Amino acid sequence: MNTSSKGKFITFEGGEGAGKTTQIKLLSEKLSSDGFDVVLTREPGGVPEAEKIRDLLVHRDGGDWDALSECLLLFAARRMHIENLIKPALAQGKIVLCDRFTDSTIAYQGYGHGFHIERIREIESLSIHSFSPDLTFIMDLPVEKGLARAGRRLERDQSGEDKNEMRPVDFHEALRQGFLEIAAQNIQRCHVIDAMQSVDVIANEVYAIFTSHE
Amino acid sequence: MNTSSKGKFITFEGGEGAGKTTQIKLLSEKLSSDGFDVVLTREPGGVPEAEKIRDLLVHRDGGDWDALSECLLLFAARRMHIENLIKPALAQGKIVLCDRFTDSTIAYQGYGHGFHIERIREIESLSIHSFSPDLTFIMDLPVEKGLARAGRRLERDQSGEDKNEMRPVDFHEALRQGFLEIAAQNIQRCHVIDAMQSVDVIANEVYAIFTSHE
Repeated sequence: MNTSSKGKFITFEGGEGAGKTTQIKLLSEKLSSDGFDVVLTREPGGVPEAEKIRDLLVHRDGGDWDALSECLLLFAARRMHIENLIKPALAQGKIVLCDRFTDSTIAYQGYGHGFHIERIREIESLSIHSFSPDLTFIMDLPVEKGLARAGRRLERDQSGEDKNEMRPVDFHEALRQGFLEIAAQNIQRCHVIDAMQSVDVIANEVYAIFTSHE
Repeated sequence: MNTSSKGKFITFEGGEGAGKTTQIKLLSEKLSSDGFDVVLTREPGGVPEAEKIRDLLVHRDGGDWDALSECLLLFAARRMHIENLIKPALAQGKIVLCDRFTDSTIAYQGYGHGFHIERIREIESLSIHSFSPDLTFIMDLPVEKGLARAGRRLERDQSGEDKNEMRPVDFHEALRQGFLEIAAQNIQRCHVIDAMQSVDVIANEVYAIFTSHE
């Protein structure tokens, strides 16, 4: 592997409990020991102003943002993340590993909340000129398994604590379907990983795909 | 005047020190004494979540948002302001008086910071379907006079404390020109008020225009 090559932007996507965080950490450690300069980041957030947007989206004490407003906020945060952190790191030849990116907006606001995907694409195009990862891992898991791993009890969600219009299981099924469709539409960039496998098996698969992608 | 008519959405625009706040207060008092149900609000802000966006735009400790990102944030805030406050008030027949609205985004981010106005219009169209005031007062004042009234010292600004690319005087001249061009393009909706007149003369003129607009 040539550590002097230009940087690479790699994203991890998937529903809750799919093990993104664990795998990002493992890939980061492996690449660092290979001599790469690795930057770990996440969305929404990654830079201080974008982290404020994350807080805004999480703490909705003043009322809910709708899916369109969420998209505007997410892409404003993403734009600053790209310009202030991702692009400068790539220009220095670093490997940027990011927990979620535009695919999550398409999956959550589009497939999940039913906002028109072509309008999300319009906002993407005008705000970040459709800046896209070099490589994306989509951690795929049956919904019940993922929610259980994430410590979510479906019964509680179904009592209305979750603000999605659909039943949580249906919402998360739509998310999963969304991620799989995104993968099918971007076969060069996206690799679906069976997240039911053991942590080590997944880590080896992710590393092998990274290596062959060089 | 027929207080049972459907509500009216009225905005006040202009540069710093033009007396918007004073005139909104005076018109509000006059209309209230006429029996109207009046709601005072402002942008960015007006509802709790949108006020958080205002804070975000004011406190830039984590770095500057660029003009495009500002537009995305402003229209997300505006969308929630419209849906959660303005439209419900208008539906109840209220008069909504708002300190700044989309015209300020066109003037500041467009004419002032030089972001493409047609792109701001695209974001306006997709985020708020170009929802627009019934009546707009544009308080016009020579730049030096306005900045002096607002307690701004041009010397200080010119030393670089102001983050605009152009010299502050040029920036505020571009703003003023922007507001006048917006007025010229929307002669049914926009009324330019000579803000060099006395507070009482302006208040009478604003009230007369409101009345004749009924």
